[in-house]
Parts: sequence; C-alpha cells; structure tokens
Amino acid sequence: MSWEEKVRKADPYVAGEQPKDPTFIKLNTNECPYPPAPGVSRALARLAGEREYARNRLYPDMDAAKLVDALAAKYGVEPEQIFVGVGSDDVLAMSFLTFFTNGSPVLFPDITYSFYDVWASLFRIPYVKVPLSEDFAIDPEDYLPSGQLSSFLPAGTEAGGIIFPNPNAPTGLAMPADQVERIIEANRDCVVIVDEAYVDFGADSVLPLTQKYDNLLVVQTFSKSRAMAGARIGFAVGSRKLIQYLKNVKFSFNSYTMNMEAIEIGTAAVEDDAYFRKITARIIRTRENFKRELRAMGFTFPDSRTNFVFAKPPADRMSAREMFGRLRGKHILVRYFDKPRIDGYLRITIGTDEQMDAVVQAMKEILA
Amino acid sequence: MSWEEKVRKADPYVAGEQPKDPTFIKLNTNECPYPPAPGVSRALARLAGEREYARNRLYPDMDAAKLVDALAAKYGVEPEQIFVGVGSDDVLAMSFLTFFTNGSPVLFPDITYSFYDVWASLFRIPYVKVPLSEDFAIDPEDYLPSGQLSSFLPAGTEAGGIIFPNPNAPTGLAMPADQVERIIEANRDCVVIVDEAYVDFGADSVLPLTQKYDNLLVVQTFSKSRAMAGARIGFAVGSRKLIQYLKNVKFSFNSYTMNMEAIEIGTAAVEDDAYFRKITARIIRTRENFKRELRAMGFTFPDSRTNFVFAKPPADRMSAREMFGRLRGKHILVRYFDKPRIDGYLRITIGTDEQMDAVVQAMKEILA
Repeated sequence: MSWEEKVRKADPYVAGEQPKDPTFIKLNTNECPYPPAPGVSRALARLAGEREYARNRLYPDMDAAKLVDALAAKYGVEPEQIFVGVGSDDVLAMSFLTFFTNGSPVLFPDITYSFYDVWASLFRIPYVKVPLSEDFAIDPEDYLPSGQLSSFLPAGTEAGGIIFPNPNAPTGLAMPADQVERIIEANRDCVVIVDEAYVDFGADSVLPLTQKYDNLLVVQTFSKSRAMAGARIGFAVGSRKLIQYLKNVKFSFNSYTMNMEAIEIGTAAVEDDAYFRKITARIIRTRENFKRELRAMGFTFPDSRTNFVFAKPPADRMSAREMFGRLRGKHILVRYFDKPRIDGYLRITIGTDEQMDAVVQAMKEILA
Repeated sequence: MSWEEKVRKADPYVAGEQPKDPTFIKLNTNECPYPPAPGVSRALARLAGEREYARNRLYPDMDAAKLVDALAAKYGVEPEQIFVGVGSDDVLAMSFLTFFTNGSPVLFPDITYSFYDVWASLFRIPYVKVPLSEDFAIDPEDYLPSGQLSSFLPAGTEAGGIIFPNPNAPTGLAMPADQVERIIEANRDCVVIVDEAYVDFGADSVLPLTQKYDNLLVVQTFSKSRAMAGARIGFAVGSRKLIQYLKNVKFSFNSYTMNMEAIEIGTAAVEDDAYFRKITARIIRTRENFKRELRAMGFTFPDSRTNFVFAKPPADRMSAREMFGRLRGKHILVRYFDKPRIDGYLRITIGTDEQMDAVVQAMKEILA
C-alpha cells in the first residue's frame, strides 16, 4: 500500500469568509463589533516588559490558575469546578472525548452547531440527531426518558450523553432555565453538556445548576460576548468530579495548550465586568432595533437571544441565497447555509448600530 | 449505568515540577535559560496598541499566514509546505491522526518521547516499540525492510508509519542525516516523521530532504531553541501533498487554534535569525563545558546533541534517584525517570554558565 493510501482523508470545514478588504461590513462569523475590555490592552503592554516577555521561555502554567481563579470569582464557583481551553471548540472536543466515548449514542439537535457530528465521527461516538420542531424549537420532551427519548434511541440502548447549545445556533432560540433543568434532572445517568456560547446576549444560563447536578457541564467562550475570538479562550464549569475527569483526559496527552498571553489577557477581560455588561447590553439593544426593521421589511425569524438573527427574506420577494449574493455585492457579508430546512435563512451577526443601519438600507434597496 | 461509569478514565501525565519559589535552579523541563528574541517584546508592545489589541475581537487568521511565510523564508521552502500548531505536541498529535490511523502498526523506539504511545492509544493506532541498542542508539537497520524491520512487525503486516525524535529524548543522541535518510528512503510506503524538537543544538536536520521525499514530515518547536515554551508554537515541514492532508484533517474539526498573539510573536522570533544562532551556540558551548565537568566527576552519558545531558552518576558512589533528591535539597531541579533501563540516569537541562557551575559545585559537595 502506498503512503497516500494510508492517509486519513477529511473535508475541511469552510468558515465564513474573512475578507482582507476593509470596506466590507463583516457580519458573517458572529464576532463582536466592539474591542475587548481596555484591560486587555494594558495586559499586553505589561507582557511586553523586559521581565514579563522573558517568561515566554518557560512553559505556561498548565492549570492557567490565574484565569481559572478570575472565572471562579466571577461565577461564584470553586476553581476546581473550572476547565479552560483553546477556545470552546477545544473544550467541547475534549468533553466529547471524556464523557461520550462509552459506546452509547449521544443525542443532539438535527439543526445545531456543525462540529458536534464531526467530533462524534472523529472519536467514533455513535450519535442520534433529534429533529427540532417546525418552528426550530428544541422540545424538552424529546430528551426525557418519560417523554420521547426512547423513540430516538436504538432498541436496548440508553443515552450515552446529551449536548445542545442554549441558545441554539444558527437559530438563535433560547430555552428557559426550567426547561433545560428538566432535561438535566431526567438524565442523571449521563453527562449533559449545555453549550452556552451565546448565553450572555439575554438568555438564561444554567451555570448555577452545576452546584446542584454533578452530571451537568456548562461550556462558554470568550469569542462572542468578551470580544476575544482572536485570543482563543473557552471554558467549562461543572462539578469537581466532572472537571477532574476532564482534566485527567486532557493532561494525559497534552500538558500545555493555552499560552501565557491568553492566560494574562483572558484574566484582564474577566476582571472588567462593567465593560462586559456594557457591550452585551449594547448588542442586545441593537439586535432588538434590527429585529423591528427586519419585521417592517417583511422578514420572518425565530426570536433570537444571541448576537445574530436568523432571518428569512419575504418569501414572495427574494430567496435567501439571492439576498446573500446581493448583500455581498454591496460589501456586506452575512452567512448563508445551503442545507435542508435552513436554506431559506440568512444568519446575520449583530454589529454596531451604524453597521446595522447600513444593512437595513442595503436590504431596502435590494428589495425595492 | 451511572454517568460516572460512562466516563473515560485517564492518568494525567506528570510534568517536571514547576516551583513557585524563585530560588530554585530549574533544569528539569528543557527550557531555554535565555529570553526570546527582543523582537518578541516589541511585537507585544505593538499588540497593546489601540487598533492592534482591538483585533482580538476577530477570529485569528486560521492559516497563520504571517508566521508560515516567515518560516518558509527561513527554511527555503514554500508556504504550502508548512503546518503550524499549538506547540509541537499539537502538531504531532494531528500528524498521528492524519498519517497513522490506517490500521497498520506504527513504529517508534522503546525509549523515546513519552507521548507517542499515549497518542497511539488515544487514536487506537497499533504500535510497536523498537528497542534501542545497549548504548541507547537507534539502529537504522531496525527500520529497514531489508534489515530487521519485519522481525518487529506482526506477521502479514507492513509498517503503518515510523516516528522517532532526532536527537532522541531523553537520551540526547543524534543520528547523522545520511542514516536518517536510509530509513526514509527504505520506507516510501508510509509516512516517516522525524521529530526534531532538539535539532538546533548541534544535530543534522533532515528538513532539506522534504524536497526530495514526499513521505517525510519534519516537526520542530519554538519551545527549546527559540525560548518560547510559553507561547505554544510548533510546526511541521513536508511535501505540499503531505501538508495538505494534515490541514484537511485539522480544519475538519477545529478551525482556529493558534491565537493572534502567538502568530505575531512567533513571527518576530523567526525573523531574528542572528539572535537564534547566538543563543543556541551559547547553549552548545555551555553543554560541552558541562560534559567535561561531568566526566571529571565520573559521570557517564550518551554524547548529547540537545539542550540537556542524560547522565549517570558514578555508579559506585551514588544512585541517580539519590542524586536527584540531594540536588533538590539544594534547590536544583533536574529530571529523574523511575523507568526500566533509564532509572540510573538524570536528565539535566543546560542552563546558563552560572547555573551549570552551581550544579557542578552542588554535585561535588554531594559526592564528597
């Protein structure tokens, strides 16, 4: 057999376009339109100092204790309840590997974050996609052993794990905390992961429930509400037991992942809670204004609690695909997924008020 | 089944002790005693600027083009021949996943970098450990189909891949380039990975051979010779084809890993070749002096071409384990592995001249 026949062949994920041209309004990857907390700039200036920059010669603190302590203080949990990683993708992949590789199928929605089935395949985890309702909602009944759960599982199997984003992506819809708790409470025999990448934009977090349920893992990211996609920081909160299992797996094959710079600037970001609240409130306000404009133009959309809106152009006027192309022609980038059930929608990131005004103006011109 | 029964249980790797107490002389994790290139400090100061730090709100360049271009220029290869990752551990793990998961056994030395068998187990890759010779050398004959190779393989199988560090760790011994080439040339039917983490301290690199053999992958790191363990940067060089396969697998499940800071400061480090040559030459000089002192005290050791020496205390005087403890008592940290064949040795990182003088002085006192 030749060496090429022995190689794993994979299809790379195609991320939203990253234009070099600065005239583009970039609303296609759910980035934050505002800079990170000013303390991040000060932390970088400190890191440039003679003694500090020299610390790069040493391995970073593999426990990232400084960042973990800041997160523990912010969320009112013990440091031993926190796991940090290189973006929430790293944290989630590690969680799949730790909690879902027991041979039983893991369940997640059919329309959801696109990496779940990729990680499942990579780690050879059987999985079941649970269809969202017609209006894109997650129905908690579908995940309850007393409800529809068994109808989704192969005969004789039990759930090996459950994961869903709340709010879900790319729909933007959030479940209230009591509905999420029903799912967790009814599934104490497997780990339930709630992926809260977008929770800071007005949805309920179940992070406090990690004190009550030792099988609950809540995953969050610095890439959206903390405006730090460039720094690659994600974290998980759970019971001490859960986090210890996660750390044991992670440290069994890679001791050092988060670099010294990420630990320092991530800490600075967490420490400025006032700035965090200010920019998330601003994005929520801009989003609600944008929803009103969309509605007035005849768009329909699930009621987003995220930093994006998943919107369908007025059906009699224009397809999502065409609107996507026409917006691009006006140097406005949004996201279009050419996939069943969602190919009628555009995922539009919430930018600044000025950017959203420009989008509305462009849409009006296109629809005119 | 309870959720805990469904969890993967792993034993975390125990890294060399990282003391908080600054009075320790830390020669236990093969870090560089000198700071990174001064350009790294300037890059951090630039990153702290108002416009630059704000770029953290955006996802980093997933191709890390700036860093890749700098490496391509330095090593005289095309950018398409370079893959970068979060430390060489990330690059190596990704390479195992891409090149070695074909079901055939991968071969590596029995005494070598401790993560090879961990990654193989993680990805369910069968592997064979090929014993080093009595004097810790890798015998190229053991890896040749015309030599001993088949005696190590299960009947009816062919090699699924080969990996070894050159110089090897923790022995420090290097193979000349022509011997490494014999192994590559004789194994065109699988990928051969040469892990050159320590190559810059006086060994032959086979990086230029990537232009000749499309099945050769050379992996290097910024953690040792570039004094940047804290920044987590590693890279691989190979044929365009090989690198494309690696990228496809990596991008199939995690688009963004290296943060913006690592890309910028890594580039600054590569661009200062004079500094790089200066500090590696200095470490080599210190190492050769240290070898003379060790020899005078009756230590024996393989002839290291790395930034550490793997040394056995004079057997009639003291065991390695005892020497390790006694040095620690004098606040000098070295590495001791309680494993068959190597438990008589200490791995001592090369620090500054002053640090090595202190080590020699301490050893003399201990042996007296």
